[in-house]
Amino acid sequence: MFRRELSVTTTGRGLIELTGDITAAVGASAVADGLCNVFVPHTSASLLAGENWDPSVRRDLEAFMSRIAPDGDPRHEHDAEGPDDMPAHIRTMLTQSSIVIPVAGGKPQLGTWQGIYLWEHRTAPHRRQVVVTVW
Amino acid sequence: MFRRELSVTTTGRGLIELTGDITAAVGASAVADGLCNVFVPHTSASLLAGENWDPSVRRDLEAFMSRIAPDGDPRHEHDAEGPDDMPAHIRTMLTQSSIVIPVAGGKPQLGTWQGIYLWEHRTAPHRRQVVVTVW
Amino acid sequence: MFRRELSVTTTGRGLIELTGDITAAVGASAVADGLCNVFVPHTSASLLAGENWDPSVRRDLEAFMSRIAPDGDPRHEHDAEGPDDMPAHIRTMLTQSSIVIPVAGGKPQLGTWQGIYLWEHRTAPHRRQVVVTVW
Repeated sequence: MFRRELSVTTTGRGLIELTGDITAAVGASAVADGLCNVFVPHTSASLLAGENWDPSVRRDLEAFMSRIAPDGDPRHEHDAEGPDDMPAHIRTMLTQSSIVIPVAGGKPQLGTWQGIYLWEHRTAPHRRQVVVTVW
Repeated sequence: MFRRELSVTTTGRGLIELTGDITAAVGASAVADGLCNVFVPHTSASLLAGENWDPSVRRDLEAFMSRIAPDGDPRHEHDAEGPDDMPAHIRTMLTQSSIVIPVAGGKPQLGTWQGIYLWEHRTAPHRRQVVVTVW
Repeated sequence: MFRRELSVTTTGRGLIELTGDITAAVGASAVADGLCNVFVPHTSASLLAGENWDPSVRRDLEAFMSRIAPDGDPRHEHDAEGPDDMPAHIRTMLTQSSIVIPVAGGKPQLGTWQGIYLWEHRTAPHRRQVVVTVW
């Protein structure tokens, strides 16, 4: 079992593609056929297995989230860290904290247009951890 | 570690139960006690662990998705493949790309009324892959 | 591979923290470095990896779910078990049935403010199973 912890500095809300880092970790593990778990130990950032070709898809996903969980919604009781605090928890709840991907031929067996993204849900930059485990 | 790739031809939007195929893969693996990962390498089809008894539950889940991510929503920038293109990505985001199920006594340890479904989110038929790994 | 099945009696709708039980299972497994899968074999209860410090976060998550999937919504066809029946399936769909957490130093490697919760989505008390597997 091989583990690599990624440290990702975000520039505020948005999707950051991790596919290259995950592929590198799988390569370094020397596992030819197996599985790879990606885990985010945060509650205001999460994972997305999403379309990696057209950037307009990511803009539309972002816009969807902004509509169903708008910043500064007065119905939220919790706003200790600002108007984007509670929406970040809702967005995390609606997406993933862990994804398990097959490994074949020494590579993560993702779809042709499928990428793995870290989604920063806070508007301010943060330093995020991502734990990749290959076995 | 045992792997089986399922190829599923969909007839357009809807839920297709995979429980039988997953149970067969677990049986073929000869793993008595372990785990089973189900993974979908697509961004407009996904997985659901849902109620498998009353079909009205699946119709209501479908109706819910149609309400929060309606086809042809003019607010979407991305519609390269038609009015159901971007809603399919949103539905994928809100459900799962991977599920890890315990295996006990040579069978996936699902709940009594719990089935694993492939959810085709596009309105046109597609050929979809599902990767089952047992260990 | 180590397995422990938790039996949780809920008191109706709400979030019950499982972090202590999962940490205990990982400890009992004697696995120092590995992975831990948490699985819920139900379709009206699910898992959340969420903020564990301020209870107002959980109240706001609950309120969000009540807004997007209100009890007694007349558009639901399925209401065999009451007005909270179909909303419970929608809430399960939008959250997780399985989460895979890294194990390091004999403990689940969760974030500082990240807890694992069982979310009871039905308004009546239920007895729920949670399957923890460590390897």
